[in-house]
Amino acid sequence: MNKAHLTFDLEAPGMNTGQLVVPGGADFEAISLPVFSLNKGEGPSLLITGGCHGDELEGPIVAHRLIEWLPAAQTCGRIIILPVLNPLAVRAWSRNTPEDGLNLNRVFPGRADGSVTERIADGVSRLLLQPVDIVFDLHSFGPTWDCAPSSLTHPIANADLMARTFRMAEAFKLPVTLLWESHDTAGMFDTWAQSQGKVFVGTEFGGGSVGSDNLAIYETGVRNALIALGLVDGKAESPTCHQRKPCQTLETLSSDLIKSPARGIFEPRCSVLEEVQKGDLIGVLHSMDSISADLIKFHAPSSSIVYGIRSGLHVDANEALIRLARPLAGC
Amino acid sequence: MNKAHLTFDLEAPGMNTGQLVVPGGADFEAISLPVFSLNKGEGPSLLITGGCHGDELEGPIVAHRLIEWLPAAQTCGRIIILPVLNPLAVRAWSRNTPEDGLNLNRVFPGRADGSVTERIADGVSRLLLQPVDIVFDLHSFGPTWDCAPSSLTHPIANADLMARTFRMAEAFKLPVTLLWESHDTAGMFDTWAQSQGKVFVGTEFGGGSVGSDNLAIYETGVRNALIALGLVDGKAESPTCHQRKPCQTLETLSSDLIKSPARGIFEPRCSVLEEVQKGDLIGVLHSMDSISADLIKFHAPSSSIVYGIRSGLHVDANEALIRLARPLAGC
Repeated sequence: MNKAHLTFDLEAPGMNTGQLVVPGGADFEAISLPVFSLNKGEGPSLLITGGCHGDELEGPIVAHRLIEWLPAAQTCGRIIILPVLNPLAVRAWSRNTPEDGLNLNRVFPGRADGSVTERIADGVSRLLLQPVDIVFDLHSFGPTWDCAPSSLTHPIANADLMARTFRMAEAFKLPVTLLWESHDTAGMFDTWAQSQGKVFVGTEFGGGSVGSDNLAIYETGVRNALIALGLVDGKAESPTCHQRKPCQTLETLSSDLIKSPARGIFEPRCSVLEEVQKGDLIGVLHSMDSISADLIKFHAPSSSIVYGIRSGLHVDANEALIRLARPLAGC
Repeated sequence: MNKAHLTFDLEAPGMNTGQLVVPGGADFEAISLPVFSLNKGEGPSLLITGGCHGDELEGPIVAHRLIEWLPAAQTCGRIIILPVLNPLAVRAWSRNTPEDGLNLNRVFPGRADGSVTERIADGVSRLLLQPVDIVFDLHSFGPTWDCAPSSLTHPIANADLMARTFRMAEAFKLPVTLLWESHDTAGMFDTWAQSQGKVFVGTEFGGGSVGSDNLAIYETGVRNALIALGLVDGKAESPTCHQRKPCQTLETLSSDLIKSPARGIFEPRCSVLEEVQKGDLIGVLHSMDSISADLIKFHAPSSSIVYGIRSGLHVDANEALIRLARPLAGC
């Protein structure tokens, strides 16, 4: 069996580019993922990835912008950048890989003899994750949501790793640093990386259309984190978003997700980072079956901050509509 | 053969709601499109439609908001509202109808014995278009574009109808009133309606995620047009967008569309309504094949205003990326 391999030596000093070659299998041919490496010796060792989900293009674009900028900016340490983890999904503008239907962010650490998505995870885990101490994985909420630009982690059982991870997340100085409670973390890239002792920060870079103004915010966030690591020189900036205050530290619980009780056309009635009070009308659902059907109204269950809100679109029963958050206790 | 029919009398005074029933055929069962009618006697007669394309939900939501508001606001004339022209496409969040692959906005006036999309067009043409003088058809640029909120018309050969249509478009007082040169107008709803002597104004309500702030702009635009028609009382407002100046009258030519010469990840480097100078860098294309591949750069071919810009995403060769515009001569 062929195994995944790199076309260049990651340990070589200076800037190198090449490919992570993921071997073919019964389901799909071999694919090559372009990789950038800038090795300036002693210092932190960082992997930056984007394009895990194919409808979240903020990450790949910010990764490419960093690749343009780092050769003149990086002063020490090692940065490896894989702009697109899943080119099959990116080409299809789809969250999952069309060829096997899998979510790359649920199959880590992957399998060398698995389907194409599992083979990608295997190659990334063994060849790019193994040599680094820190990972930034650049996500966004995709085309059907608007969300606050944020760095985040799920809770981590190891208290020391949790503290180091949260400090790293805060260094992005994005509008939100978020602790995200989730019960669906099996096979996630972050869960696997953390089990290997890595500091892993995910970012959620907005959603909706991917525009130049937001891309500038996202790039500033990653640059801030690189400055905090000492990999580049400079002074951190605090970008604001939606004209609201910068740098809030929030927590979102599983119970903070509002879902639709029925199918219909969702109309958002609040905006990202808006502070809502208990009882405020924050969204409505219009029936497509009848003009005279009663509106279904969504009210804020408690005083909250809007972290993510679904775009206006047709939803089925039980689809997620609004994710609320609240200040993290102790911050 | 069953023909399309309404479940209520459009001529009845006052408010009435019901369904436009589009009969079934070999390809799909009968479907019912909810319709609202408010008949206050003498005055202009207007049809408002949304949801022609299933991934443009601004129109259906604004239509529902008008249905909530009009019973207390309309003073004369007749307004018929069909919030969702194509529920099959809306359910699928798809531009075309999944069941027959057709673009509803290319099959007007439709066929009673055609496929489901053609049957919808036939029902709308005969039962809802025929009794009115004016049509507002509420579109947007969909999830992969950002565009300026605008009312528009394609050029119309009949000079009198052209002048009346353009005046009607300007009455929306949206950030842009646009004359759009197009060579792909066969089967469009507007082309058909104009051939029947109707004043038909299309709107393009932004794109990307459908959020509450933009929906307020769009609703204001339609209310302005209703005020201009004398259907409701009030004073027009001029909403701004992206903090830029309100109410520009622009023209976009077929040659104002920039397309991609290759496949790759498009990165927008300009924003909607930005004024760009000849030679300005307004977008780049990143290769997914190699880190060291040269960027493809897009420069403004002349001094222009950005009307629409594609979201960051993977594109194939020949896909549209940026639509520029310029002040309309004589305005």
